[in-house]
Amino acid sequence: MGSLRSLSSSCRALLVGRRILARVTSVPYRLYQPGDQATKDAVEDVIAQKGVQKNFVLKTPKGTHDVHPKQMAIRERILSTVVDCFKRHGAETIDTPVFELKETLTGKYGEDSKLIYDLKDQGGELLSLRYDLTVPFARFLAMNKITNIKRYHIGKVYRRDKPARGRYREFYQCDFDIAGHYDPMIPDAECLKIVHEILTELQLGNFCIKVNDRRLLIGILTVCGVPETKFRTVCTSIDKLDKIPWDSVRRELIEDKELKAETVEQIGKYIRLNGGLPLLEHLWADSKLSQNNLAMEGLRDLKLLNKYSEIFGVTDKIVYDLGLARGLDYYTGVIYEAVLLRNPGGPPVQQNGHSEEFGSVAGGGRYDGLVGMFDPKDRAVPCVGLSIGIERIFTLLENKYKNSKEKVQTTETQVLVASAQKYFLEEKMKLIAALWNSGIKAEMFYKENSKFLSQLNYCEERGIPLVAIIGEQELQAGVVKLRNVATREEMDISRENVIEEIRKLTRRQ
Amino acid sequence: MGSLRSLSSSCRALLVGRRILARVTSVPYRLYQPGDQATKDAVEDVIAQKGVQKNFVLKTPKGTHDVHPKQMAIRERILSTVVDCFKRHGAETIDTPVFELKETLTGKYGEDSKLIYDLKDQGGELLSLRYDLTVPFARFLAMNKITNIKRYHIGKVYRRDKPARGRYREFYQCDFDIAGHYDPMIPDAECLKIVHEILTELQLGNFCIKVNDRRLLIGILTVCGVPETKFRTVCTSIDKLDKIPWDSVRRELIEDKELKAETVEQIGKYIRLNGGLPLLEHLWADSKLSQNNLAMEGLRDLKLLNKYSEIFGVTDKIVYDLGLARGLDYYTGVIYEAVLLRNPGGPPVQQNGHSEEFGSVAGGGRYDGLVGMFDPKDRAVPCVGLSIGIERIFTLLENKYKNSKEKVQTTETQVLVASAQKYFLEEKMKLIAALWNSGIKAEMFYKENSKFLSQLNYCEERGIPLVAIIGEQELQAGVVKLRNVATREEMDISRENVIEEIRKLTRRQ
Repeated sequence: MGSLRSLSSSCRALLVGRRILARVTSVPYRLYQPGDQATKDAVEDVIAQKGVQKNFVLKTPKGTHDVHPKQMAIRERILSTVVDCFKRHGAETIDTPVFELKETLTGKYGEDSKLIYDLKDQGGELLSLRYDLTVPFARFLAMNKITNIKRYHIGKVYRRDKPARGRYREFYQCDFDIAGHYDPMIPDAECLKIVHEILTELQLGNFCIKVNDRRLLIGILTVCGVPETKFRTVCTSIDKLDKIPWDSVRRELIEDKELKAETVEQIGKYIRLNGGLPLLEHLWADSKLSQNNLAMEGLRDLKLLNKYSEIFGVTDKIVYDLGLARGLDYYTGVIYEAVLLRNPGGPPVQQNGHSEEFGSVAGGGRYDGLVGMFDPKDRAVPCVGLSIGIERIFTLLENKYKNSKEKVQTTETQVLVASAQKYFLEEKMKLIAALWNSGIKAEMFYKENSKFLSQLNYCEERGIPLVAIIGEQELQAGVVKLRNVATREEMDISRENVIEEIRKLTRRQ
Repeated sequence: MGSLRSLSSSCRALLVGRRILARVTSVPYRLYQPGDQATKDAVEDVIAQKGVQKNFVLKTPKGTHDVHPKQMAIRERILSTVVDCFKRHGAETIDTPVFELKETLTGKYGEDSKLIYDLKDQGGELLSLRYDLTVPFARFLAMNKITNIKRYHIGKVYRRDKPARGRYREFYQCDFDIAGHYDPMIPDAECLKIVHEILTELQLGNFCIKVNDRRLLIGILTVCGVPETKFRTVCTSIDKLDKIPWDSVRRELIEDKELKAETVEQIGKYIRLNGGLPLLEHLWADSKLSQNNLAMEGLRDLKLLNKYSEIFGVTDKIVYDLGLARGLDYYTGVIYEAVLLRNPGGPPVQQNGHSEEFGSVAGGGRYDGLVGMFDPKDRAVPCVGLSIGIERIFTLLENKYKNSKEKVQTTETQVLVASAQKYFLEEKMKLIAALWNSGIKAEMFYKENSKFLSQLNYCEERGIPLVAIIGEQELQAGVVKLRNVATREEMDISRENVIEEIRKLTRRQ
């Protein structure tokens, strides 16, 4: 007779079937001979595969989660709002692989590179899971020699981050980007308009869009006397301003980053500034800044952006915030980040940004050098784009639904084909096939006989508006009884009219 | 001054901006001092990141590919047909992580397990990319103690396969499954109905659905005298019958699998049989098979399935094919596979299946033991499901579009806001903002001035039906000129009516 190991094949797969399951689970004594190493291995093999050994953990990987039908239904609604907006602005969509060559991602994310997931070297290429959708987009443009495109991309990205509240290691990104050589700030203003439209339509409450420019920020650091070598690390500290107060940032800059106290004071004067157009005018007149070309270039573009934003009607939400740094290395110009505000009706401008915000729900900026990094001839393709923080929005709206107790429908079924009596399975199958063939969304119970009440309850639970009832009487009369689940009204409809009637009744809903 | 390495930070990201790009690319001599190791490293670092070193390959990983806008547009149409069908049958949808704990996938795929992608051990859990959507589904059911659900799931799966024609290492699966304790063959018949509906609606040409039962197959091997230990490996050989002729399979079974010639002859007599209900009746009366309970159980279910399939009107495409084995370990009952046939009008039954087929486009079966493998108390949740071979279908329909020369539209833009004269940027921006705010899909060129002809050409290329033209004259008259791109008709519409008119004109299309 075969040992248990010999069963670890399609045969065992068969044996774990419903009726024979017990046999393998209990490890049949006739096969188990203690002392026989091969048999022992085989038994352990089976136990391991049955998942009954002590250490077996039934879970998803750390920082990941399943999405249940109700969550999916909410997500689909949100995504359809977002995609509708992207399409309204004329975007196409693309898809790229979930993993890239490791070297494609190398040197694009600065300090964050340590969070990249690598695949095991199983022979062949060294691969990493994508960290965002922007670098794959740039690789796509360079590889296909595309010099202008307006595209959106919705896909999962991966970061080996410490899973904190609402932060996942696998999460969706939802990006819109405009690539091409265009006149300054026109695409950039459209990106702000899109963020404004989406956050408004999703009814997330009051928000503001913080705007800054990398050139302005670097210009400020330069005129304050920060050495070039420290730009990056100083930016990292500044980036924390939305989470910790200036005093803590200041201490970090002096103690950890070893800047002079005087330099830090000067930085602090600039980067804590925020406001509207007057702030830009004020900086334009700043005697120190005006000596720095990079800063002036950034300011000139911000002023133009403000003009276009006014035309687009989005300046009500825009705050120029010199403390906005954004983490990623690849930005080269305008940067922005939309945050929800705790004070629903209040003004978007905050004194101490960190204490009044609810969290970032969108961000983006201009990255004119990234595509060139992939091009053998260094041909640059200027890009500007935005990323909707869709996972945070999912969470916010899931909670909103939970609190509102509004029922989330996970299916679109229009009619349940049911029977109040036994032995009508075949008749129900005939009817439901006719409904499916006419494009009507229909379900039936997968049992020969079910209680009528269970069928009605199912409709109420699932929000199915109609029941099509077949019984002895209906069969003889050549009719189907249609029951409105909400009103409990019933009416007999002749068999040949039933499809049309269902269409009519569910259209009315 | 800082070395080049000191620039590998947000500062460099800035410097690779449009206007300053050349500086870094050409490695400025003032920074490059030969002999200085740190500088040399830094230069190499920049070169590596600029992608100009000799070995840099600009590509997607082996066996993966980008999906371009036109392909995406075709895919979205196909997926919407498929999802509509799943919804018509009352399915919900879920999502699961792209990677699972390695142990979750262990022991589920038999020989194919070697094709699983593992993630690198970077500290923490050992993870693998999902190989299909079925095992994650079973894990999801067991983990959440769900005992019945009807769900679809569309997602990418990963297999380290040799990339052959049309076979990818990353590809979409598109699954529909029914889990729960139900009466025999009712959900199974619905799965066949769904495959039938989808393949018919997608107009892929003639197809047949091969049906078999794992229990019947194992019963046949048993009565032919195949030892239990060889079931699995014999099944693997049989599974090749759709690709190589019986003679080759026979030789493999005798020479490689070391079966007796007599046994192989007997197997050959059974597994080359295919046909409709009469074949099932013939087998039912087979004196040898009737001694095997497992085979009879399988046959009884197939006969019931045939009855339900008749009611559902799908038997025209069904062929019972005893040579269908299917690779995966977890099937325990009915199995099926839909193949496209080369002879568009011919009968679905083939003499030598392998030569007449175009390839598998759907498959599935019953797997009653898989969920129990994840349950600490071995509670089984019977499941039956199907997987649409969506990648093959994508390829088929992409080629069909290419050959038909029908233009695939990648955007839904209704109107291009244009100007025949210079200096109307701001007026165009005002108009387009109003259009966007009214939900109209609109684009404009991102340039202060563009040639009018370029704007018209763009509309023709992209299938944009309308142009909204603003010029000096229109501005003074308070109108917008609407031009129908196809007919070249133009008419002046007063500014306050333009939105309504665009809606009317694009609705008519």
